[in-house]
Amino acid sequence: MTETAPFGAELPRYLVDQAVREALQEDLGLAGDITTDPIIPHDARGAAAILVREPARIAGLDLAEATFRALDPQAVFTRIVQDGGEAEAGATVARIEGRTRALLTGERTALNFFGRLCGIATLTASYVSKVEGTGARIACTRKTTPGLRALEKYAVRCGGGVNHRFGLYDAVLVKDNHIAAAGGLGVALEHLNKRAGHMVKIEVEVDTLDQLEDALRFPVDAVLLDNMDVPTLKTAVALAKGKVLTEASGGINLETVAEIADTGVDLISVGALTHSPRNLDSSLEWVRTR
Amino acid sequence: MTETAPFGAELPRYLVDQAVREALQEDLGLAGDITTDPIIPHDARGAAAILVREPARIAGLDLAEATFRALDPQAVFTRIVQDGGEAEAGATVARIEGRTRALLTGERTALNFFGRLCGIATLTASYVSKVEGTGARIACTRKTTPGLRALEKYAVRCGGGVNHRFGLYDAVLVKDNHIAAAGGLGVALEHLNKRAGHMVKIEVEVDTLDQLEDALRFPVDAVLLDNMDVPTLKTAVALAKGKVLTEASGGINLETVAEIADTGVDLISVGALTHSPRNLDSSLEWVRTR
Amino acid sequence: MTETAPFGAELPRYLVDQAVREALQEDLGLAGDITTDPIIPHDARGAAAILVREPARIAGLDLAEATFRALDPQAVFTRIVQDGGEAEAGATVARIEGRTRALLTGERTALNFFGRLCGIATLTASYVSKVEGTGARIACTRKTTPGLRALEKYAVRCGGGVNHRFGLYDAVLVKDNHIAAAGGLGVALEHLNKRAGHMVKIEVEVDTLDQLEDALRFPVDAVLLDNMDVPTLKTAVALAKGKVLTEASGGINLETVAEIADTGVDLISVGALTHSPRNLDSSLEWVRTR
Amino acid sequence: MTETAPFGAELPRYLVDQAVREALQEDLGLAGDITTDPIIPHDARGAAAILVREPARIAGLDLAEATFRALDPQAVFTRIVQDGGEAEAGATVARIEGRTRALLTGERTALNFFGRLCGIATLTASYVSKVEGTGARIACTRKTTPGLRALEKYAVRCGGGVNHRFGLYDAVLVKDNHIAAAGGLGVALEHLNKRAGHMVKIEVEVDTLDQLEDALRFPVDAVLLDNMDVPTLKTAVALAKGKVLTEASGGINLETVAEIADTGVDLISVGALTHSPRNLDSSLEWVRTR
Amino acid sequence: MTETAPFGAELPRYLVDQAVREALQEDLGLAGDITTDPIIPHDARGAAAILVREPARIAGLDLAEATFRALDPQAVFTRIVQDGGEAEAGATVARIEGRTRALLTGERTALNFFGRLCGIATLTASYVSKVEGTGARIACTRKTTPGLRALEKYAVRCGGGVNHRFGLYDAVLVKDNHIAAAGGLGVALEHLNKRAGHMVKIEVEVDTLDQLEDALRFPVDAVLLDNMDVPTLKTAVALAKGKVLTEASGGINLETVAEIADTGVDLISVGALTHSPRNLDSSLEWVRTR
Amino acid sequence: MTETAPFGAELPRYLVDQAVREALQEDLGLAGDITTDPIIPHDARGAAAILVREPARIAGLDLAEATFRALDPQAVFTRIVQDGGEAEAGATVARIEGRTRALLTGERTALNFFGRLCGIATLTASYVSKVEGTGARIACTRKTTPGLRALEKYAVRCGGGVNHRFGLYDAVLVKDNHIAAAGGLGVALEHLNKRAGHMVKIEVEVDTLDQLEDALRFPVDAVLLDNMDVPTLKTAVALAKGKVLTEASGGINLETVAEIADTGVDLISVGALTHSPRNLDSSLEWVRTR
Repeated sequence: MTETAPFGAELPRYLVDQAVREALQEDLGLAGDITTDPIIPHDARGAAAILVREPARIAGLDLAEATFRALDPQAVFTRIVQDGGEAEAGATVARIEGRTRALLTGERTALNFFGRLCGIATLTASYVSKVEGTGARIACTRKTTPGLRALEKYAVRCGGGVNHRFGLYDAVLVKDNHIAAAGGLGVALEHLNKRAGHMVKIEVEVDTLDQLEDALRFPVDAVLLDNMDVPTLKTAVALAKGKVLTEASGGINLETVAEIADTGVDLISVGALTHSPRNLDSSLEWVRTR
Repeated sequence: MTETAPFGAELPRYLVDQAVREALQEDLGLAGDITTDPIIPHDARGAAAILVREPARIAGLDLAEATFRALDPQAVFTRIVQDGGEAEAGATVARIEGRTRALLTGERTALNFFGRLCGIATLTASYVSKVEGTGARIACTRKTTPGLRALEKYAVRCGGGVNHRFGLYDAVLVKDNHIAAAGGLGVALEHLNKRAGHMVKIEVEVDTLDQLEDALRFPVDAVLLDNMDVPTLKTAVALAKGKVLTEASGGINLETVAEIADTGVDLISVGALTHSPRNLDSSLEWVRTR
Repeated sequence: MTETAPFGAELPRYLVDQAVREALQEDLGLAGDITTDPIIPHDARGAAAILVREPARIAGLDLAEATFRALDPQAVFTRIVQDGGEAEAGATVARIEGRTRALLTGERTALNFFGRLCGIATLTASYVSKVEGTGARIACTRKTTPGLRALEKYAVRCGGGVNHRFGLYDAVLVKDNHIAAAGGLGVALEHLNKRAGHMVKIEVEVDTLDQLEDALRFPVDAVLLDNMDVPTLKTAVALAKGKVLTEASGGINLETVAEIADTGVDLISVGALTHSPRNLDSSLEWVRTR
Repeated sequence: MTETAPFGAELPRYLVDQAVREALQEDLGLAGDITTDPIIPHDARGAAAILVREPARIAGLDLAEATFRALDPQAVFTRIVQDGGEAEAGATVARIEGRTRALLTGERTALNFFGRLCGIATLTASYVSKVEGTGARIACTRKTTPGLRALEKYAVRCGGGVNHRFGLYDAVLVKDNHIAAAGGLGVALEHLNKRAGHMVKIEVEVDTLDQLEDALRFPVDAVLLDNMDVPTLKTAVALAKGKVLTEASGGINLETVAEIADTGVDLISVGALTHSPRNLDSSLEWVRTR
Repeated sequence: MTETAPFGAELPRYLVDQAVREALQEDLGLAGDITTDPIIPHDARGAAAILVREPARIAGLDLAEATFRALDPQAVFTRIVQDGGEAEAGATVARIEGRTRALLTGERTALNFFGRLCGIATLTASYVSKVEGTGARIACTRKTTPGLRALEKYAVRCGGGVNHRFGLYDAVLVKDNHIAAAGGLGVALEHLNKRAGHMVKIEVEVDTLDQLEDALRFPVDAVLLDNMDVPTLKTAVALAKGKVLTEASGGINLETVAEIADTGVDLISVGALTHSPRNLDSSLEWVRTR
Repeated sequence: MTETAPFGAELPRYLVDQAVREALQEDLGLAGDITTDPIIPHDARGAAAILVREPARIAGLDLAEATFRALDPQAVFTRIVQDGGEAEAGATVARIEGRTRALLTGERTALNFFGRLCGIATLTASYVSKVEGTGARIACTRKTTPGLRALEKYAVRCGGGVNHRFGLYDAVLVKDNHIAAAGGLGVALEHLNKRAGHMVKIEVEVDTLDQLEDALRFPVDAVLLDNMDVPTLKTAVALAKGKVLTEASGGINLETVAEIADTGVDLISVGALTHSPRNLDSSLEWVRTR
């Protein structure tokens, strides 16, 4: 993962700034921090540390830093670990020095971002470690928190996972309801064959081996093998291998992911990575007032 | 809960519209739905149903409805259950009729909102049922998803919980880092006594009985009894009862909440309600193409 | 007031930046400053001073500074007086050095903010000085200029006043129309008793002593004694004292405020502080071109 | 004025919608109306009336209507008087029927707009009536409330006044600081003569008759005669009449405006129309609950 | 093209609304339409027609309709031709009835959108007709007008062309500067091979046959054959055919496009479609005042 | 032109920032630059140059600089030529040093702005040179790209042209459809005479000499002589000269503009300057990786 940090796709800066601005507005409203301002002098300075309370794959330090610096542009934020790196329970991952008011006011917003993104990265890393050596990659879905998709997909990358499409706009995925509404898989794929853009990949969801065979008659790039049991999945992978990418999905969890990976499937997509991660337990510890 | 629906605080309409608009922009980008549009005629119409796949406390139907109607202003959305109501596994909670493209394009966005809000409401309802009859109320915190605080706090209300403050601006809560940075609880409370607004409530976090006694010397409205074991909590409640509201917090879960409630504490705040809910499993089932 | 400056609630920085950005866009449009740009070279530099032409309580220097620095990030803004401080007629309160174009282009926007906020602070200070020694505090209301509430409430604090609630969301105030629409004060308060948040204060507007007695039967935090004559007000305060906060409102002006305060009421709210202040007379004087 | 209503420049609809949306967000925050929602059933309906408590020139009904309809799109708003019309003390100017919650929640926002705009229109009308028969017109300035310029200039038109430029972008006005910074009036006007757009009018501020003679050597459209006593103003008007528009400004009030107008000046600009109007006293009276 | 209309990818509605809102704000500013409003009564109604003055492929009627309906929600907009359809010089393509002010105020904004989008669609259609029968498709690029990319790419589709990637985010295109900065094509493709998402296509720009052979050693989906003469292009296509999509680009115009297409290349991308189209000559003709 | 640069109306900074922010969001989406990030290390630095490939009048360097600095605030942008200056084919007009990722990611956005604005400036300069010595000035119109009007009008100024009105709000222009809808020129001008603001210029479009004579009976500032042949135009200019500004428009091109100018007309407005400029051919050449 160390290599990923310098090379991996950056989280666009404007997304970080926008997310932080909106989160701070949500927390400060019109009156601001009515606890901190009356008790801390305007020019007091202090130092604090961000700690994780459980083993963690780190993601979201850009957001924590941007939160504190939005409140104090001169704040100094020092990273001990980088996004994509790992930390033991109790480890300090970053230190912040700056105006005391900024540290106290920004604490919750910074940790809300950090806890959620580390939660996703850590969960993703658990899945990734379960499939190590199998060739299967762990992918996320569009089951993300509204408004946070770019951040959550970035956290998946920090956890060693890969991103499926970002939205309805950047890849074609024909699902059960499309097939039902279009009146059949063939009809749908014929239309797409004529009209889909040449720089766009096409994937089809199939539930049975029959559907898989139907799908393979068309020039698709990938098949989503949905909710198949392991033996069926193996057969499906055998049928599709070498022709299209294979992706397994549906009810996969940390107990079952390894045997799914052993089927030889290329990708395993897990909605829970982004829709139901447990927040990573982290805190801001006060270091000193100066 | 039936009474809550007609009387409870509404989710301001502008928040619903804004959340839906941003979520759809996130999913549609500039190219739109490149799967649906090529395979479904512009004027095709259809019907679908929203189902829950597990027992649920419902929240977020406004967001689902607004999603489909943003894509088809003539879509008809019929609720079988209301927000705050309950549904069995497999139950249909709403039906939608409208342009087929709108139904297919809006499916994931609608379910992303609905699944998260039902997840929160259902988890809240579990806690509420555990403390039934004790007089304790279940409260949420500021550990919410950035950008979704209003929605998530609304879901807590749908689950029968109560909202703690919405942000740094609407109530005072003096926490450990404030005390550390200010140089002591007494210093902090003296400042607040002089400067806090007359329409604002003040709460203080205390970790020990000594701190509690300190806090009770000041005109505060509530004390947050943080991470106390049950016997200590009982003593603390006895000390504070009749003087200030008492709130327990810290590492409370579905196993421990009942004995916490039995201490006679007024409120039990649970960060996990909003920071780590499991998404409720739900789906959009295709009913017919017309 | 000197103590207030270092400790008082800050005006959140994002509100300052947003207000200044919108005001400059309003004044510059698409063509920019078509008077200044053609007559002043791009790189000309100058210095100017902000003067008050009448005795003033100062508020709004953050906005003036942000205006000039939005137009010239290198501009140097030096404060002679701080927000919350006082200035004699003719006094210079701040100096600005920077690009001449920025000084001339920003002049009106800076003074529009500064004049309005000083007007409010100065008017508030007049009321505060009238009630000195009585224990009564002067409060503002929600009768603010749409879009400027946070700024205007900040100016009230600079004038030594206190802020009533910031909006419909941070405290409960049951007024005449609520009582009329709900079908009586008792009905309204019973509902609130069950449903209002535990961190929210409740105030009730009463016009008569009978209504006051009704209100005191419920667990409210404050009563708004509306449009009572002085003897009635005295009786009302006597009834409520020690039980709830008392607030007088309705047609109070600089002539009557002292006798209102003498009734022993805790708070006197004055809508005119924010809805009808006279702009403070101020100007930007050119110091030199360099 | 009756003629103005059907023909006068409309307040662009998008400005009304934007102002109302921002004002409601300011008042509702994330929690919404925590007084009204718990005490009024979701589906309760009612009727109310907007009254003026003093003689008024009406302005701002579009904003009041848009406020209530933003909260209840089915609300019916009926105007008894139109913008630009007049109302006696105690008169009802509009009636609203709709959801009770919408009426109670929108009351303050609607009246904040309405009171300010009527205040400006009524003050403008006072000035206009003082100069009736003289040929002089009453004009506003750029001394407006940040963010509300379009609304306030519209209110001036409703009061029978005329609008000076809307911003730095739509007309040239060379003021004292421009002349100081540019190094003289001649320098400034030579530059403008070469570079100002052909569809843009040019006005110059002059303090003395000498400056006026200087200005008249250049092709300007208007002169702003600043702070001149009445005899000087008369001489200035005589010098300029027939060549350029003449505008008087500086410390003009309701006592002095008539004699200023008698000098024959074309326009009299009054900053106080928009920077220091007294809010018109108005209220929302409850009519019935249904 | 008739088939495209009912099936082709929709222009997302929110993009239409946003573009129209911004364009109207740009044209109306704060004062609104100061020509129309003083001369046309508020309630006057009229009818007008949109005509093309030269043969046209139509695109952009959604934007014209949305413009008029933003100004008059009751306006009736009737299409004679659909987007993607063709019109002769002088043909009426749509009729509008509504408030006269709305028709006059919206005219220029509606035609600015319509003229630009028809210009792009018509130019695209010219290229498409030149390559008819060859199997080559005409594609656009990212050389679009900032802020209008979605609209311009939609117009290309209306002209019968296909869209290349929408941005930096939905497909990989390795260009000369990437290769220079990365230190060689091989280095770049090895990195991408490890890190590009599985649902993303990869294209490489090559200038020579040697570079093409290099590129074909990697698992790429398409090659951009840049600025090759026709014989080289033929060789390149022969080398790549059956392995990857081939795309020609660089200095292609209406004179040369047919011989480029005859090389058998799959796609021909033309930046001028969106960066330098001539506006289609169109007008709003007044039909009647009613 | 050298003099224009230091003195001409600036492009307001907020417009530059806003245009660049929106353009980058359009190009980066949620995933960012998925070509550059995987192949270029995070901390790699490089240098590049902006070249023009044909003779150019330069405009838009502020936008190019702001694009790169939005992606790398430490990037150094050095101008060889200024806006309003000229460059030969092949000339380097600016150099950029900074993070390699920022240079590669910003390339297309920077050139999209630069190419369009230079295209407009260069086309304007061609017209200006054709009328040199005649006294006629070249003006733009409101036929601009939606959303880019301020930028395009600035480019016209860089090309030596003058700006006509910026929108419907800053000058009156009575056109054919106004006359038709109002029921005659006289009716329209009488209304305007009573209601137009005193700081606003009025222009009337006339198609015939009869209409011109009608128009000259009213106090208008300019006449737009639309689509007149050269002899008629000469007569019209003779009639109007000394009374009002004269402007020719309608189907003017580089072949005909000189003889139009020879008629003595004051202004020649050319819609094609902004609605149909050819993008200037420019490129970003890689200089070195460091």
